[in-house]
Amino acid sequence: MQAVRIGLLGLGTVGGGTLNVLLRNAREIARRAGRDIVISHAAARDYNPDALNGLEQIGQLGDDPFAVVQDPAPDIIVELIGGLSPAKELVLEAIDRGKHVVTANKALIALHGNEIFAAAQDKGVMVAFEAAVAGGIPIIKTLREGLAANRIHWIAGIINGTSNYILSAMRTRNMDFADALGEAQALGYAEADPELDIGGGDAAHKLTILGAIAFGIPLQHDRTWVEGITDIDGQDVRYADDLGYHVKHLGIARRRKDGIEMRVHPALVPKSRLLANVEGVMNAVVVVGDALGPTLYYGAGAGSEPTASAVVADVVDVTRVLTADPGNRVPHLAFQPDAMTATPVLERSATHSACYLRMQAENRSGMLGSIACILGEAGISIRAVQQKEMDRDIVPLVILTQAVEEGQMDQAISAIEALAGIRGRVVRLRVEPLE
Amino acid sequence: MQAVRIGLLGLGTVGGGTLNVLLRNAREIARRAGRDIVISHAAARDYNPDALNGLEQIGQLGDDPFAVVQDPAPDIIVELIGGLSPAKELVLEAIDRGKHVVTANKALIALHGNEIFAAAQDKGVMVAFEAAVAGGIPIIKTLREGLAANRIHWIAGIINGTSNYILSAMRTRNMDFADALGEAQALGYAEADPELDIGGGDAAHKLTILGAIAFGIPLQHDRTWVEGITDIDGQDVRYADDLGYHVKHLGIARRRKDGIEMRVHPALVPKSRLLANVEGVMNAVVVVGDALGPTLYYGAGAGSEPTASAVVADVVDVTRVLTADPGNRVPHLAFQPDAMTATPVLERSATHSACYLRMQAENRSGMLGSIACILGEAGISIRAVQQKEMDRDIVPLVILTQAVEEGQMDQAISAIEALAGIRGRVVRLRVEPLE
Repeated sequence: MQAVRIGLLGLGTVGGGTLNVLLRNAREIARRAGRDIVISHAAARDYNPDALNGLEQIGQLGDDPFAVVQDPAPDIIVELIGGLSPAKELVLEAIDRGKHVVTANKALIALHGNEIFAAAQDKGVMVAFEAAVAGGIPIIKTLREGLAANRIHWIAGIINGTSNYILSAMRTRNMDFADALGEAQALGYAEADPELDIGGGDAAHKLTILGAIAFGIPLQHDRTWVEGITDIDGQDVRYADDLGYHVKHLGIARRRKDGIEMRVHPALVPKSRLLANVEGVMNAVVVVGDALGPTLYYGAGAGSEPTASAVVADVVDVTRVLTADPGNRVPHLAFQPDAMTATPVLERSATHSACYLRMQAENRSGMLGSIACILGEAGISIRAVQQKEMDRDIVPLVILTQAVEEGQMDQAISAIEALAGIRGRVVRLRVEPLE
Repeated sequence: MQAVRIGLLGLGTVGGGTLNVLLRNAREIARRAGRDIVISHAAARDYNPDALNGLEQIGQLGDDPFAVVQDPAPDIIVELIGGLSPAKELVLEAIDRGKHVVTANKALIALHGNEIFAAAQDKGVMVAFEAAVAGGIPIIKTLREGLAANRIHWIAGIINGTSNYILSAMRTRNMDFADALGEAQALGYAEADPELDIGGGDAAHKLTILGAIAFGIPLQHDRTWVEGITDIDGQDVRYADDLGYHVKHLGIARRRKDGIEMRVHPALVPKSRLLANVEGVMNAVVVVGDALGPTLYYGAGAGSEPTASAVVADVVDVTRVLTADPGNRVPHLAFQPDAMTATPVLERSATHSACYLRMQAENRSGMLGSIACILGEAGISIRAVQQKEMDRDIVPLVILTQAVEEGQMDQAISAIEALAGIRGRVVRLRVEPLE
């Protein structure tokens, strides 16, 4: 059978990894795919030729990605440039020319996926994006195909390796946030501008994609509630540890009767959960389906070759269906385009979580009673109270609550902060027992 | 599009679960598959009609599975009878009649898969078997498709839930083997005749399938080295715990320069590994690929609906490619049939493991020296020694070694057992750091 021709856009971290993996494992991949895969064209600027092996095996290497897309030869365009523009224009032009697309671009899919998939549907081509979520872990394939029999109840994932690295370092080595971030940057895990990682934006892109696939709703990035880890204090990591929890940055998508919770925030996870023990830059996603129950997928969520692993798997998948009836392919978002539902994504205030509250309180009688009274009147049950450093005038007071609607907790926290004897803001972290 | 017609063979635990899932999630599944899936025919004996919902939605229900296979109507035969005969005859006849097959039958695939897949290849039909390994965890799909870019280095899995339940109970609740087995039987996790579970045979069936798919070798069940958990003593579970390990029953397939290790046996796994913390009846498989690195898949390895989850996912996959060119399908064993390799599966004596040795030794000077001398002469390095209960005449002595070829260790153990002052046999467990 004729070799499949790739047009590769970008030779940065993921593009270089894809080149490496395609060439090094060419025989192993062809043994699985049933045909050879060659890079007939590539376009890149700003790459380091000395750091790349096998450039000479690329048919034509230039610097204009549009020229690659417009060339009739490539069967599949692999977009590894990143960013929204010109990635979006390149992908749409490739689709318009009847080419299949593989991309690792989570922002592009989360923000413009609905438009891109509609265009692909019109033209009968595939847009594959396994590498956009959790790097090399085949979580898109798992949700779309492996768990196709299930009604998905919820998903909870550690889907930003940088944030997980920082939280791991804060807990296991008692580092403060700034030092842990500095170390992550020095090791190349965090960008010079780490905002997209530590602010939660990157995880929100990924969660948007996971939620759409799990529940059969359109991509709705603007409906995901996002908190990063920038406000996590070392003492909260330690108090959580004392109470039997690890602090993790989670993306959570949960089906409820009245809609779908889509949220990204730090959370306390019981130590006994596998997810609590995912350390460093590793990613893991828990999926709970009605037939299968809980199931977990763990692996490298970023990096050159782990991400390339997903890119190349997508290339093999596209290769396999090049001649197949488009109507029989796996739908882009798992569910057929005409079978999407309008189930609403809920506002943050309507979502439910148990909470960890920490406040600085004057060390005098009646303080705890006043706080408990506010919580009780708001219908919020207390599960545990811990008071540290009893010998000071101002003491940290930690409270674990039962699950409560965020809106109710907002009001209760305002009331607590208004109490005489409470200094500063109440720290709130969500507790996710993952039951 | 016309509904896909299933011929369902068997309405036991997995068959009943498949009926439940297909009916309960019919709409969710059709939203993904793009067409309805109906059970046009079913055959079962020995089933409990009172325990099954939706029997009336089966087109024709009888007791002759051959009649279902021979009926022209079903597009896909779902074989959930189990055992080798008549399952094999049914599957081969379905293939001969041009029908696709979905099966959960690990013994059938491990022992007769090569013949079955060759017949399916001839007839251009698919035989899907996701449910045969690790229940509902989509590990076959992951290895065949999700990790298609990788050269697989090794796989290690907890793939028998009954054995894992027993070992978990022995460690966490200090139970002895017989009590833990009795509890597993009372809870329905172990069969009345549990030999296939606790003797390792069931795990060997699954490992045979995983190894073939990972490395592109034919199924070679008779080449897998098998030890069960029947000889695991509670004191070894406790000593291992003291040394920082959990005892797990693993299936391991590992690529080496001179061949492939395929082995099923209990092993000490460092507590820090996720795999060490997989408890109860849950399954988990670690896969290490050259591009992706280590990755882990966790979930229910047995049970009615978890297994049905995999069966129905296979049905959806087959449904999707019903009209596709057979040459473009995912190969049964991941690699194209003409791209299999003859890499040998190694004899047990040629495999390598670090070891945990426990022996009963007379409490006198020179004993440890004699043992160390034997190990040293065999080129075996000692990593740790632990001697318990120093005040007795006969004391248990535990030794951890570095990795060594099994054959060398066989000889060293014989020499130790021949020492005056050593009572009884030397207990040997393998240590798998999973690095």
